[in-house]
Amino acid sequence: MSNNYLSPQEIRQLCREEKLNIHTPGLALGYVQANLVILPDSLAFDFLLFCQRNPRPCPILDVTEIGDFEPKYIAAGADIRTDLPLYKVYRHGELIDEVNNIKNYWRDDLVGFLIGCSFSFENAMLNYNLPGRHIEEAKNVPMYKTNLKCNSTKQFSSNLVVSMRPLPSNKIVRAVEITSRYHKAHGSPIHIGHPEAIGIKDINQPDYGDAVTINNGEVPVFWACGVTTQLAIENAKPELAITHSPGYMFVSNLKDEELTF
Amino acid sequence: MSNNYLSPQEIRQLCREEKLNIHTPGLALGYVQANLVILPDSLAFDFLLFCQRNPRPCPILDVTEIGDFEPKYIAAGADIRTDLPLYKVYRHGELIDEVNNIKNYWRDDLVGFLIGCSFSFENAMLNYNLPGRHIEEAKNVPMYKTNLKCNSTKQFSSNLVVSMRPLPSNKIVRAVEITSRYHKAHGSPIHIGHPEAIGIKDINQPDYGDAVTINNGEVPVFWACGVTTQLAIENAKPELAITHSPGYMFVSNLKDEELTF
Repeated sequence: MSNNYLSPQEIRQLCREEKLNIHTPGLALGYVQANLVILPDSLAFDFLLFCQRNPRPCPILDVTEIGDFEPKYIAAGADIRTDLPLYKVYRHGELIDEVNNIKNYWRDDLVGFLIGCSFSFENAMLNYNLPGRHIEEAKNVPMYKTNLKCNSTKQFSSNLVVSMRPLPSNKIVRAVEITSRYHKAHGSPIHIGHPEAIGIKDINQPDYGDAVTINNGEVPVFWACGVTTQLAIENAKPELAITHSPGYMFVSNLKDEELTF
Repeated sequence: MSNNYLSPQEIRQLCREEKLNIHTPGLALGYVQANLVILPDSLAFDFLLFCQRNPRPCPILDVTEIGDFEPKYIAAGADIRTDLPLYKVYRHGELIDEVNNIKNYWRDDLVGFLIGCSFSFENAMLNYNLPGRHIEEAKNVPMYKTNLKCNSTKQFSSNLVVSMRPLPSNKIVRAVEITSRYHKAHGSPIHIGHPEAIGIKDINQPDYGDAVTINNGEVPVFWACGVTTQLAIENAKPELAITHSPGYMFVSNLKDEELTF
């Protein structure tokens, strides 16, 4: 059986048994995948406020109770300590470890934040025959730091990170229409067409992910990206922070359509 | 000059000078009015989480910094201690005072939460010639405690409170379409047509506000209501809580259309 036909529960179980160590895009197609951020409860209010003030890059899907590892609203029975394929562990903003589970790092004061991800609207775009260049080229989506400031809180501040998808100019309106429905998966684009206007110097040199081909007549379209939270954590330098590794997401029980209006 | 033509800034200034002590519906038409909840910072994470888990009754528009009284994202320069006409003060869940300003109650550990309100979509409904019965009858909108449980947090739990507007059956689809756009003002209805199905025993005996006429052929339509937060506060019995008095809302600088998708 192909991995693509596994249920979210089966994928999480394989992760828990350390038998699944691949990127999650394309797995359990139609189910919502989520970014993960784990922080001590002393920062929980301020981080939740940062997300509330920046809903485009940081659409909150679930928040675990302090010390609890079950994201009960999006995946009853799941365990955020074990059910993702790969995690990053940060101390004072520095990456110190990349691990298959975080049981050794778990503490009773930790809070998990599950944040929407663009895979949800990418499926919808493909359904409408809009090209997904990074998917065609089997790459990670290109991501860029912009000069756009997120709304800050006392502890967290960051410039906005965006992902980019090149589209033929006659497909852009449709792309806006489709993605704007997925308000819990970054929603509509934040910029169309002029990378330099948002502080991107070289479209062929993304800060994260891979460069993709932009054909003649195609326009770069930019969406807010969940990697913004990782930049905010690097800036805040919390004593401990744990995130998923890029591309190794949490697979929830929600369907993509549940993130729409 | 009629009060209706005052700007949000002028209304807030009159409140600050204690020269405006009337209900705010109809004032600064087209601008967003907000529910206010003020709590000590020790409860701030848990209350923000309650709102995040219950976005229909509790759509967050702004959260002030700890100890700060300016809701800078929706009304730069405003002061939540003085700029509403009337406040309620609760100690341990009991109403202890109703005052024109809360300067004497303000503390450096307080956090203000501004929460969307149905006035925003009522204006849109009137623009589409949908009847606003409580407006026609010059009453407060009828509100009811339901048997629907909100998602709880450690400190906050509540049944959902709803407001009701009777509509001719051939107008209901339009009402759903219109109000669903205003996701930051309670959004689409949570129930149509069967009060008893959500635990309302007598539609003519609302728990808050006033009963309104339901004509033959009209159907009661129910929306999530911000009064839910007051019920959650009564249940949580925090050492101190301050809210607006019903109908005496905070008038922000946002336009109603800014709450839509």
